[in-house]
Amino acid sequence: MCSLPARIDVSLYAIVDEELLEGRSAAAVAAELAASGATVVQYRAKRLSSREFLGKARAIRGALAVTHVPLIINDRADIALLCGANGVHVGADDIPVADARKIMGAGALVGATALTAADALKAEQEGADYVGAGAVYATLTKSDAPLIGLEGLKEVRASVRLPVVAIGGLTLGNAAEALATGVDGLAFISELMNAASPGEAARQLRAMIDASRRTR
Amino acid sequence: MCSLPARIDVSLYAIVDEELLEGRSAAAVAAELAASGATVVQYRAKRLSSREFLGKARAIRGALAVTHVPLIINDRADIALLCGANGVHVGADDIPVADARKIMGAGALVGATALTAADALKAEQEGADYVGAGAVYATLTKSDAPLIGLEGLKEVRASVRLPVVAIGGLTLGNAAEALATGVDGLAFISELMNAASPGEAARQLRAMIDASRRTR
Repeated sequence: MCSLPARIDVSLYAIVDEELLEGRSAAAVAAELAASGATVVQYRAKRLSSREFLGKARAIRGALAVTHVPLIINDRADIALLCGANGVHVGADDIPVADARKIMGAGALVGATALTAADALKAEQEGADYVGAGAVYATLTKSDAPLIGLEGLKEVRASVRLPVVAIGGLTLGNAAEALATGVDGLAFISELMNAASPGEAARQLRAMIDASRRTR
Repeated sequence: MCSLPARIDVSLYAIVDEELLEGRSAAAVAAELAASGATVVQYRAKRLSSREFLGKARAIRGALAVTHVPLIINDRADIALLCGANGVHVGADDIPVADARKIMGAGALVGATALTAADALKAEQEGADYVGAGAVYATLTKSDAPLIGLEGLKEVRASVRLPVVAIGGLTLGNAAEALATGVDGLAFISELMNAASPGEAARQLRAMIDASRRTR
């Protein structure tokens, strides 16, 4: 496991979703994103067997080893621990934050999804290292996710001291208004996975995020 | 976690499969089986979310706490550790035995599925505590599982010192011939889950297993 800064840089939180890879290598896409401005890579694979999930997670860990970009595994603390990831992200259907911490240990990152300020505060109290707030906008990736909009995002941001990353339906076109709520970063799935070049998409998003910060 | 005998008693290895419960409580069925002669209870829930799986596993652990029947969780070492189960069982699609051991620790039980003598030997070398050998016969629970028959069962039994439990398509009708191969116990899913009374089915199976041993 890599040594980590005390506070995770969630500026450009890139999510590699196995179900959207359409035959591409998860490790190759993760490496491309890490080389193109992503500050975190999360890997999710809800439908793979445990054996396949672990194998692909280890390949990503290997591909990211030369970078300083932390790897977060979605849901599965056992896979995160075994592949040497920097942390695990847990949502409402995953194991609770405190249980993720038990498996991962004190040095690992544990992220939690928050729909409301109360969710975020609970995650902070349970020892989460950052909060993913959303879904901000409607998304094809999670079509049944409740939406919180920009107002919801502001409420989550105001409720905790933890880094907050906005997630859900974010694109190059609406990213600036999401950042204007004061969140620490933006998470992208479809915008990266469905791009002809995920690396080029990441570079554009990162440039926009950096520019948006300079003008604040 | 309960203290355990050095060698697990796999005589009547009862598998509670969430997908076959049809609304019944996993904890109630597990408790009924434990009170009716099961020497091990395994819980599997391939389709539940991690949150639901953990919740039900904790309920089963609670229901079995007054018994001395060990609880084994299928596939998910993180769930096994968090619910306080005695161990985890891993098959070909699950995490490898050595990885399951890393998560669970030295004191826990790790079981592995073996199709061949080579699989069983590998599992023994990697530190498994017992081997599940099968599928012996065709089974509706895993309709695509390769079959090893009684000859395959004998080969697995002869290849390792570990306890071997036969699995796959076993019923009250064919159990005696499976036991005659020298295996240490029999695992049942459908025969228990599809019974009008899982407890009564377990009592009959246990009586048959005990009687079969007396006559050897």
